[in-house]
Amino acid sequence: LSLGEGMTPLVRLERAGAAMGLSAVYAKNAAQNPTGSFKDRGTAVAVQKAVSLGFKRIGTVSTGNMAASTAAYGARAGLETFVLLKEGTAVTSLKAAGIHGPRLIAVEGDYGSLFRTSLDVGKRLGISFMNSIDPYRMEGYKLTAFEIYLQMGRRSPRFLFVPLSSGGHLLGLMRAFDDLEREKLITTYPTFVGVQAQGCDPLAAAFAAGLDGYERPTEVRPIAHAISNPTPPAGNAVLRMIRDRRGILLAVTDEEMLEAQRELAAAEGLFCQPESATTLAALKKLVAAGRIAEKSGDAVLVLTGSGLKTPHLLESVPVEVHRIPLSGLESCLSRLIRSTPPA
Amino acid sequence: LSLGEGMTPLVRLERAGAAMGLSAVYAKNAAQNPTGSFKDRGTAVAVQKAVSLGFKRIGTVSTGNMAASTAAYGARAGLETFVLLKEGTAVTSLKAAGIHGPRLIAVEGDYGSLFRTSLDVGKRLGISFMNSIDPYRMEGYKLTAFEIYLQMGRRSPRFLFVPLSSGGHLLGLMRAFDDLEREKLITTYPTFVGVQAQGCDPLAAAFAAGLDGYERPTEVRPIAHAISNPTPPAGNAVLRMIRDRRGILLAVTDEEMLEAQRELAAAEGLFCQPESATTLAALKKLVAAGRIAEKSGDAVLVLTGSGLKTPHLLESVPVEVHRIPLSGLESCLSRLIRSTPPA
Repeated sequence: LSLGEGMTPLVRLERAGAAMGLSAVYAKNAAQNPTGSFKDRGTAVAVQKAVSLGFKRIGTVSTGNMAASTAAYGARAGLETFVLLKEGTAVTSLKAAGIHGPRLIAVEGDYGSLFRTSLDVGKRLGISFMNSIDPYRMEGYKLTAFEIYLQMGRRSPRFLFVPLSSGGHLLGLMRAFDDLEREKLITTYPTFVGVQAQGCDPLAAAFAAGLDGYERPTEVRPIAHAISNPTPPAGNAVLRMIRDRRGILLAVTDEEMLEAQRELAAAEGLFCQPESATTLAALKKLVAAGRIAEKSGDAVLVLTGSGLKTPHLLESVPVEVHRIPLSGLESCLSRLIRSTPPA
Repeated sequence: LSLGEGMTPLVRLERAGAAMGLSAVYAKNAAQNPTGSFKDRGTAVAVQKAVSLGFKRIGTVSTGNMAASTAAYGARAGLETFVLLKEGTAVTSLKAAGIHGPRLIAVEGDYGSLFRTSLDVGKRLGISFMNSIDPYRMEGYKLTAFEIYLQMGRRSPRFLFVPLSSGGHLLGLMRAFDDLEREKLITTYPTFVGVQAQGCDPLAAAFAAGLDGYERPTEVRPIAHAISNPTPPAGNAVLRMIRDRRGILLAVTDEEMLEAQRELAAAEGLFCQPESATTLAALKKLVAAGRIAEKSGDAVLVLTGSGLKTPHLLESVPVEVHRIPLSGLESCLSRLIRSTPPA
C-alpha cells in the first residue's frame, strides 16, 4: 500500500548556517513525500494497520495536509474514506484531497469535540478514524526520526526543530529518540524545539508560563492553518515530555514565519509551507537571544509540507515580471544584470 | 548543490493493470522531486556544470515547471537567475518560481525564436541558458532511466510512456537505454511511447503521417501547457530516434487526459499534473486498440509533475462537500456509508 513515502532528503543549509555563525544547519524535507507533507509517513502505517484489522472504511479530521494524505492512501488501499474538514481549509487542499474521491464533510462546531466524537462514532460505524495523534500514525512519524539519525551518520543532531500543532508529530519524533536511547544507539538526546505561530500558540504560552496544562486561547487568528489547533489533543503530553527532556517550545510571528519561508526559498532553493518555515524563524530567534551559539552544535529543521499547498499565502511575495518584445531581450537582460553578481 | 533530487519511487498500479488485463503497470513518480517535477534531475546537472565552468548567471525559457526548478537550483547555487516566461504560464507556477528570487521576464513573440535567441544573447552576456534540450540537462534525465532500470531489477520495462513536449526528456531517457544496451546491461530495448495532448501535437501528427520532419500546427489550444510546444526543438531528433527504435508517438484528448488524472488519484492514490496522466491515457488507448495485450509485458508510466502545480485544472473535478452541525455527524456518516463498500 506504499506510495513511496519516506527517505526524504536531509539538505545542508550552507547560507543560513553561515549567516548565524552555526556549525551546520540541515533541513529534513518531509515535503517530498507522495502528497507533499509529513503526514504520509504516519498515514501509510495507520492505513496498513486498518487494512490488516479488516476495516473497509477509514476517516480523519483535517486542516488540509491530513485530508490529502488520508484520501490518497485510502484510495490506494481501496477503502471508503471520510474526511471531516475544519473550517478555513484552503480550497487547494480540498481539491487536492477531493480528486482521490473521499467523502468530504464540513462539520460546524468545536474542533476538539469533533476530534473526540469522530472516534466514538467511528467505533460504532466501523470507520477507523486515524486522527493526528493516532498511535499507529505516530509510529510512522518515528521513521522520520530514524531517517534523521541515519542521515546524520548514526547520531543525534544537537537541536531538532519541529512545527507544532496537535503534538502528534513532535511526540512521534521524540519517542523515536527514546527508542534509540534505550537501544544505546545514541549518546546524547537532541534538544527538541516545538514551534507554533503566534496566532494560535497555547502550548508555547503554557511552556513560557511554566504551566502543566495548556489553556485554550480566547482568540485565534491564524494564517498558518496547518499548525493552528487551539485544543491540541496531545498538548499536555507534549508539555510534560518537553519539560522532562529539557526541550523548548516557542512561538514566532506571522511576519517572522513568512520571512523565513522566503529566505529558505531564495537562499537555499527550498519552497516549503509557511508553517514549516516556523522552524527557521525559531532557530533565528534562539540564536538572536544567545540561547544557541556557534559552539552549540548542529540543528535540523523539519520541513513538514510543500509550499505548493498554500499558494494563497504567497500574495505578499513580491514578484516583478518585466514585459518586453523579443527584439528587446538583449537590452533588457543587460540592464538587469547587477553590477556585482550575488555571492 | 543538490536539493535531494532523484531516487523517486516506482509504484505498482495494481488496479490500472488489472483493469486492462496487463501483467504489471508501474508509475515512476518524478513529481516527488524537490520542486515537484522531473526537471530537477536535469537542472541539478546543468547548474552544477554552469558553476564548474565559472558562470555567475544562469537562465531558462519556461512554461512553468522549468521556471520553478531553475529558480530553485539557481538560488541554491547563489547564481543570478533569469527566467524567460512563455505566455500562459500558470500564476501558481510563477509565484512558486518567483519566491526563489529570479528575474522574471515575459517575452512577447515566437517561442521557438525566443529559445534560439536566448542562447545567442546568453553567450554574449555570460548567462548560461539551460533550456529544455540543454545537453547537460539531458544527461540528468538519463539518471531517471537508470533508476527505472535498477528499480525494475536491472532490466528494461517492455513499454516506457513519457509525456512529450520539447523532446529533451524523452531523448535523455532513450539515450540512457542506449548506454545500457552498449554496456550489455540489458537484453531488450524498451518500446518508448511519447505522448502529446491533441491541442498541440506536432510530433504525434508527423509520426502518424510517416513524416521525417514535423510541421508547426496552425492552431494551438492547449490546456496542458507543460506539454504544449508547437516548435519542439528536439522534435525531428525525436521522430528519427523513435522510428529507429520502433517506438510510438501518439496524442490523447483533453478529456482522456483529465479522466486519467482522476483515475490515477482515485484508484491509485497518485495526484499528478494532467500532462503526466497522458501516459495512462495513452496506455489505455493502445490496449483498447489491441496494440498492447496481456502477454505484451510490463509498462512504466513516467509521471513528470505534481498535481499541486496546476490547481486551476481541477475545476472540473466534482468535489461534493456535505455541511452539517457536529450533532448530525453520526446520522450523516451512516447515510453516506455505501451499502456495498468498494473492492
